[in-house]
Amino acid sequence: MLVDGVAYRTIWLADDGETVEIIDQTKLPHLFEIISLSSVSETARAIRTMQVRGAPLIGATAAYGVALAMQAGADDAALDDACETLAATRPTAVNLRWALDEMKAQLRPLPKGERRDAAYRRAAEICDEDVAINEGIGGNGIDLIRAASEAKGGAPVNILTHCNAGWLATVDWGTATAPIYRAHNEGVPVHVWVDETRPRNQGASLTAWELGHHGVPHTVIVDNAGGHLMQHGEVDLCITGTDRTTATGDVCNKIGTYLKALAAHDNDVPFYIGLPSPTIDWTLSDGVAEIPIEQRDGAEISEMTGRTNDGRIETVTITPDGSGVANYAFDVTPSRLVTGLITERGIAAPSRDGLLDLFPEKR
Amino acid sequence: MLVDGVAYRTIWLADDGETVEIIDQTKLPHLFEIISLSSVSETARAIRTMQVRGAPLIGATAAYGVALAMQAGADDAALDDACETLAATRPTAVNLRWALDEMKAQLRPLPKGERRDAAYRRAAEICDEDVAINEGIGGNGIDLIRAASEAKGGAPVNILTHCNAGWLATVDWGTATAPIYRAHNEGVPVHVWVDETRPRNQGASLTAWELGHHGVPHTVIVDNAGGHLMQHGEVDLCITGTDRTTATGDVCNKIGTYLKALAAHDNDVPFYIGLPSPTIDWTLSDGVAEIPIEQRDGAEISEMTGRTNDGRIETVTITPDGSGVANYAFDVTPSRLVTGLITERGIAAPSRDGLLDLFPEKR
Repeated sequence: MLVDGVAYRTIWLADDGETVEIIDQTKLPHLFEIISLSSVSETARAIRTMQVRGAPLIGATAAYGVALAMQAGADDAALDDACETLAATRPTAVNLRWALDEMKAQLRPLPKGERRDAAYRRAAEICDEDVAINEGIGGNGIDLIRAASEAKGGAPVNILTHCNAGWLATVDWGTATAPIYRAHNEGVPVHVWVDETRPRNQGASLTAWELGHHGVPHTVIVDNAGGHLMQHGEVDLCITGTDRTTATGDVCNKIGTYLKALAAHDNDVPFYIGLPSPTIDWTLSDGVAEIPIEQRDGAEISEMTGRTNDGRIETVTITPDGSGVANYAFDVTPSRLVTGLITERGIAAPSRDGLLDLFPEKR
Repeated sequence: MLVDGVAYRTIWLADDGETVEIIDQTKLPHLFEIISLSSVSETARAIRTMQVRGAPLIGATAAYGVALAMQAGADDAALDDACETLAATRPTAVNLRWALDEMKAQLRPLPKGERRDAAYRRAAEICDEDVAINEGIGGNGIDLIRAASEAKGGAPVNILTHCNAGWLATVDWGTATAPIYRAHNEGVPVHVWVDETRPRNQGASLTAWELGHHGVPHTVIVDNAGGHLMQHGEVDLCITGTDRTTATGDVCNKIGTYLKALAAHDNDVPFYIGLPSPTIDWTLSDGVAEIPIEQRDGAEISEMTGRTNDGRIETVTITPDGSGVANYAFDVTPSRLVTGLITERGIAAPSRDGLLDLFPEKR
């Protein structure tokens, strides 16, 4: 997507054809900084410190990390070491493991002399595949937005989103945001309500940043506000992402998604999920019962980082000394609250049958 | 309630019998500072800058502000000036206006020489009346908590609350917190989930502070987390306050209350309101349609104040340059989502009939 008129992906190869470049997302929204990755250890650090984040982007970055390792030395030990180092960065990231398994499966059978080029080639393909999936979601989702605008006589469609399922979380386009960017680019008027998304504020700091720099009208609201807006007809459509989706259409996404889905249901506002099919876990059928919810560092709640008036980046404590915090990262939205799952193959009804209609090979 | 073992109200008369003392709530949770008010202008500033906040406490403070004015000079012009100055501090505060009207009605008929003493007397009564109302709410609400604990075999009752309807918002006890403090004091085990309550963080900064200093077990969570906790049986009971309640039991309270009520309803968790009867607006019957929702300064969302590692209080910007914000202060929870209204006279069903049963004089 655009950053002040220039098209970017979140990861790309530098002009030397070897070095990998990324946007340092820990600096957003205050600074737009590009950093270079020249080794597997630099790549591992970028993933671990969340300079890159978002399941698809983590996978793509890990794939390039393997390519950087092969550049330095392409024997079996180097391949195994690279995969081990990268896998340890975010132990619960499914895409990370998938990308590493994929790289290993591709490279291991090849003679050492061919591994470097094959690794760069496959990493680039993994990036392009992610972009293609998100473009598919955008193509299938734009009609919902166009129809909503037509139903309003061409007025802007107010779309509420939660967290960052934007292009910064993927290689390009994003998942929840793909239909929004597509609509905006094709002249369908949109306005996005961006949930702040406590505790990590990825809505206020990432989604608002990327929408703003691409030129999409948007307004930041606190997570508490969506219900009120829906009660008063100020939301036409919700679209969020998903971290993991059951075969029955239950959606595990950033904490608070469930509350917005309840409000949408209570006010007859359609609630859609931008769903890349790789995040469907076909082994699960009851999200609330079966998906364990990670608890993260309490400092994400008790501390807040921002920019002072004189431009310094400062972290402040906002809770009382002695008060404990609990930091659940995700929640599960039962499929009964979901209107539809926007996949790269089409929009599925949020049910086993709905998903299997689009992915019959999983029957 | 207690602050580290010492009993406090939020407002009291100093030993000289004239000066008024308050807790500077703008310094919480980082500093516990008591400040003295010696004039009507100091009192007005305390209300305007939110050193005191919460409808009942604002009313009580305004009453003492009139007393301070009478101390300096008790003629009609002084009385009118004081009331005008104080009324202008928070133009939409209903309790403020009520307290000033009450003081005027009491003092105006009196000879000048009697006004000072009468003003101090009536201000003290207004404080005591608020305490009595909240004690009543506590007495009526404790049985719910006791029953919940007995149903769990004496285990701690997990109570979720939103914003600060605690003793800091009143003269003592609080409204939503009165049953909680009462239960804790009487040995019924409780644990409170404290919603952070963006954008002003009054849960994390005020409710957590007061519960902690009184010794009540509690955990701060982000506003997004309550739904997940309720899905997993981690909340036995919700109790929030209310800023304004319709004659039909619709509850206008801090933004986000509605989302928690939806989650409670979806998970069969009882949702109660601590309701002092003066906040019932008997002229209203449809909260969503009839209650206008104030929009506040966007800086409450885009900026955050806290304590740095080296102890400075610092304000940082957390949203991107160029992203707009919308800051709705309240939302309305329809009575269909409310289990009961805990008033000083008993627990009312959330309906016109339910309220009129307890307040038959309003028929």
